[in-house]
Amino acid sequence: MNRIKSPTMKDVAREAGVSLGTVSNVFNGVSVSPAYKERVEEAAKKLGYTINRYARGLKTSETHVIAFVCPGTDHPFFGDLTNYINKALADRGYRMLLAVTQFIPDMEQRCIRLVSENKVDGIIALTYNPELQLEESIPFVSIDRQCSPTAPCVSSDNYSGGQLAAQKLYELGSRQLLFLSIAPKISGEPDKRRYGFESWCRASHVPFESVVIPDTDGFRPFLNILKARIRDGKPDFDGIFCNTDKLAYVILRMLKELGVSVPGQVQIIGYDGINMFGDPAMPCVSSICQPVREMAETAVSTLLSRGRPSMPTLICLPVTYRAGGTTRDREELAYIYER
Amino acid sequence: MNRIKSPTMKDVAREAGVSLGTVSNVFNGVSVSPAYKERVEEAAKKLGYTINRYARGLKTSETHVIAFVCPGTDHPFFGDLTNYINKALADRGYRMLLAVTQFIPDMEQRCIRLVSENKVDGIIALTYNPELQLEESIPFVSIDRQCSPTAPCVSSDNYSGGQLAAQKLYELGSRQLLFLSIAPKISGEPDKRRYGFESWCRASHVPFESVVIPDTDGFRPFLNILKARIRDGKPDFDGIFCNTDKLAYVILRMLKELGVSVPGQVQIIGYDGINMFGDPAMPCVSSICQPVREMAETAVSTLLSRGRPSMPTLICLPVTYRAGGTTRDREELAYIYER
Repeated sequence: MNRIKSPTMKDVAREAGVSLGTVSNVFNGVSVSPAYKERVEEAAKKLGYTINRYARGLKTSETHVIAFVCPGTDHPFFGDLTNYINKALADRGYRMLLAVTQFIPDMEQRCIRLVSENKVDGIIALTYNPELQLEESIPFVSIDRQCSPTAPCVSSDNYSGGQLAAQKLYELGSRQLLFLSIAPKISGEPDKRRYGFESWCRASHVPFESVVIPDTDGFRPFLNILKARIRDGKPDFDGIFCNTDKLAYVILRMLKELGVSVPGQVQIIGYDGINMFGDPAMPCVSSICQPVREMAETAVSTLLSRGRPSMPTLICLPVTYRAGGTTRDREELAYIYER
Repeated sequence: MNRIKSPTMKDVAREAGVSLGTVSNVFNGVSVSPAYKERVEEAAKKLGYTINRYARGLKTSETHVIAFVCPGTDHPFFGDLTNYINKALADRGYRMLLAVTQFIPDMEQRCIRLVSENKVDGIIALTYNPELQLEESIPFVSIDRQCSPTAPCVSSDNYSGGQLAAQKLYELGSRQLLFLSIAPKISGEPDKRRYGFESWCRASHVPFESVVIPDTDGFRPFLNILKARIRDGKPDFDGIFCNTDKLAYVILRMLKELGVSVPGQVQIIGYDGINMFGDPAMPCVSSICQPVREMAETAVSTLLSRGRPSMPTLICLPVTYRAGGTTRDREELAYIYER
């Protein structure tokens, strides 16, 4: 690597005609007379001196680097989350060390270990390893799954979201509801989507059924499940809540193929609030939207406020419903023409 | 922050009963007698000592951290790219410092400056600031836009991609071609998509027209442009190449609204190779796919091989065509049932 030698604090001290201690004080925010401060800052500017934060990290035990461990930025929910966490960190003068794990439990553990090896001030993680070992010395906040009895977990209010989905389907005219999902590999906050949905249906005396298939054959089994429930082109359900937008989109395509009109005969609501091409004007399906930005802000501010006397173990943020063409409130989807 | 004191090299030396220099040699890969090496490694393991890479970075001028500066991980192309660059770095024992800039030129410049302040071994950047100032001392590779006369730029082979789009439309039966795009804010490699398309049409004597609208009103003007070209439900074109998948998707929706069938009357090919929900089994539209994985690998390996006598300034990687439902080769889209 062809690295040119950078100016050091010593060079700045020489240029400014002050002691090394004075330079150090200026850069570490210690009170110094204004005249000295100005001289040091001018000298630093003239020499192109930039603070070596790593060196500073060694002194103050703070690197201003936070690690974010997540399955991958290729899924739009994780891509959004990474984006907002990055912004939330930058707003507070922190940088992000990103480690993607591709849902591999060993990789998740290795990432946690490796980021601990690099000195970081904390870790935010979205992991699926049920036996994840945390480094106790490093502040830790998880997303969507509680990883330890003491580490705070931030998620959307999945339970309320399930309730909201049932309520919306009913309000928009559906009377026979269906909950669809693939069984999760590991339990976590998103499981509550189902329970919220069921609780609303029970409390409101709205007939419903939950169909959860094993995590082995992908979405394909749903095609036969749906087919078996359609007689003479008429399904025995008229509203579906899917536990993700992706599943909602797949079900939409399957119903189309089976000759069932959406949202005419059947309304569908997903969960996540995914946009086509990351464009908020282009929702994929009608959905219960996760407040990704607020989740990111909360994860970051919770992490950075570690050490307060009482830390919550679970923070759930409110979700919202958004029409996206698969419900009868806004079918036209004209908004895709806006950028 | 409640940080527990970690064991130091001194603690390891004491535990192993060797000198500090021996411990240092072991961790820095300097040759040491096997017996000593074993003692040091056992002591390190016993104490739970992990190498502080930041401290090591100060010694060897290598931090094994690479900064990736990009507009945001919320667009699926950038999300994919971030993911693959992260993997490519991890495979080589490097970590990624991620800085998102939201397309803001000042932010891009600030990110470059800030990542230089944190000691990094190099920068990979996808930026839109035409006046970006680089730190000469830090190895730099750009993506999609040449930022300096000497820094290598990695991109897909946009020109060949444009040619391939025209050729595919023609092979699949289109005879009156259209190129559509919104004018780019800043010139870069993606501009070549248009020129490749036009060159193929000229060379093959296939009639075509290019419609590039200003970057002021989003996609909306295309609706009137298309409308004006449709007489009695019959468009005066039968094949469209859009410079992005997002535009292709919008045009698809507009043609549907105007009563034109896709791909029956008009075939559409986009550029990028975007998948719904990041799932390779769910393409958004028929597309010229960027080899995102290979671009990431190439950017990383080029960056890490800096200092070789001769560095290329532009590396273009081959694109591929993929059917996605908007061309007449594979309309059924049945593949969405696979996960």
